[in-house]
Amino acid sequence: MRILTEQGEEGVDSISSERLAELAGVNAAKVRKDLSYLGSYGTRGVGYEVAYLVYQVRRELGLTHDWPVVIVGAGNLGQALAGYDGFGARGFPVVGIVDIDPAKVGSVFAGTRVRHIDELPQIVQSKHINIGVVATPAMAAQDAADRLVSAGVTSILNFAPVVLLVPRAIEVRKVDLAVELQILSYYEQRRAGGAIPAVGAPRPANA
Amino acid sequence: MRILTEQGEEGVDSISSERLAELAGVNAAKVRKDLSYLGSYGTRGVGYEVAYLVYQVRRELGLTHDWPVVIVGAGNLGQALAGYDGFGARGFPVVGIVDIDPAKVGSVFAGTRVRHIDELPQIVQSKHINIGVVATPAMAAQDAADRLVSAGVTSILNFAPVVLLVPRAIEVRKVDLAVELQILSYYEQRRAGGAIPAVGAPRPANA
Repeated sequence: MRILTEQGEEGVDSISSERLAELAGVNAAKVRKDLSYLGSYGTRGVGYEVAYLVYQVRRELGLTHDWPVVIVGAGNLGQALAGYDGFGARGFPVVGIVDIDPAKVGSVFAGTRVRHIDELPQIVQSKHINIGVVATPAMAAQDAADRLVSAGVTSILNFAPVVLLVPRAIEVRKVDLAVELQILSYYEQRRAGGAIPAVGAPRPANA
Repeated sequence: MRILTEQGEEGVDSISSERLAELAGVNAAKVRKDLSYLGSYGTRGVGYEVAYLVYQVRRELGLTHDWPVVIVGAGNLGQALAGYDGFGARGFPVVGIVDIDPAKVGSVFAGTRVRHIDELPQIVQSKHINIGVVATPAMAAQDAADRLVSAGVTSILNFAPVVLLVPRAIEVRKVDLAVELQILSYYEQRRAGGAIPAVGAPRPANA
């Protein structure tokens, strides 16, 4: 979905399974097999129509209607996420922001007024929210998660650099903003020619 | 690396290739083969020592020394990234923040003083920076990237929801904060039993 969206933004109308496979880092046969489950087979010599494939994947991902989200934590990260164009545009409107700090309550970020974290159950129920975003400092994240779960949220996106303990039925995805930097540092390391040979294992030429 | 770090944080001392494979969504034979290139073979019945494997992967990724980064954009996202514990802790200290808005210059975020974007070349050269982070609004992102490249940065982490055009030699990674929400919405969709059958392709039981 990410790749298709990027290709669409770049003006690509149709794409081959080989190209999709290359961009996704998997093999083309797997791409064709996976997409066949969506009822999408592409056209020999032309590939898949990007816009229609996006529609099919969106339908499968449950993106044919909006999923309102609530953000816990109105610090810089919470404010940045509330104002992040990508959320609303992708079908995840931020319909609530809460914070534990009374001094932050009442401020308005990206059109949403910060409310006290004690109001979380009421916000989750009145706005039919399934997904909560934890944007607190690390030490407050577990409490934020506990409160989201108590309020009735069933999926959590965690930006805090800690592992959250939640009941088994709750889905948690952790966003680690440093992972992409680690990938860049790998390229920089190679660019500098500074790769240290592994001990005990000669590197095959195709590694 | 992300998985190993999480396992380490959860107190796991050693891990089997099967468990690593399960967490990474690949097969165990591939894990063993890939790790053999690092000179890491694990111990039958015990697995890999997490801390030593982290060391080996860090060495390979070029994470044995710090990679200082500069952030372009001192808005909410730039401030949040400057204060994000994960960057410094993972070896990516934020050593500079610049903004085009004179009103923001001079403010201090997470110990770093905002400087004007015109000072970028000087900052990049004096602090030996290879990696720049674009944390501007979408419409300012291409200019930010152009200035980073002119200043001598060779890798860019882009948080703006646009595709950046850069010379071929420059690495760009785009962070799409909405992707994880799309994954959660898929789980929510399944939870609700709301998956719409694909047209034209009966779903195999093992899909």
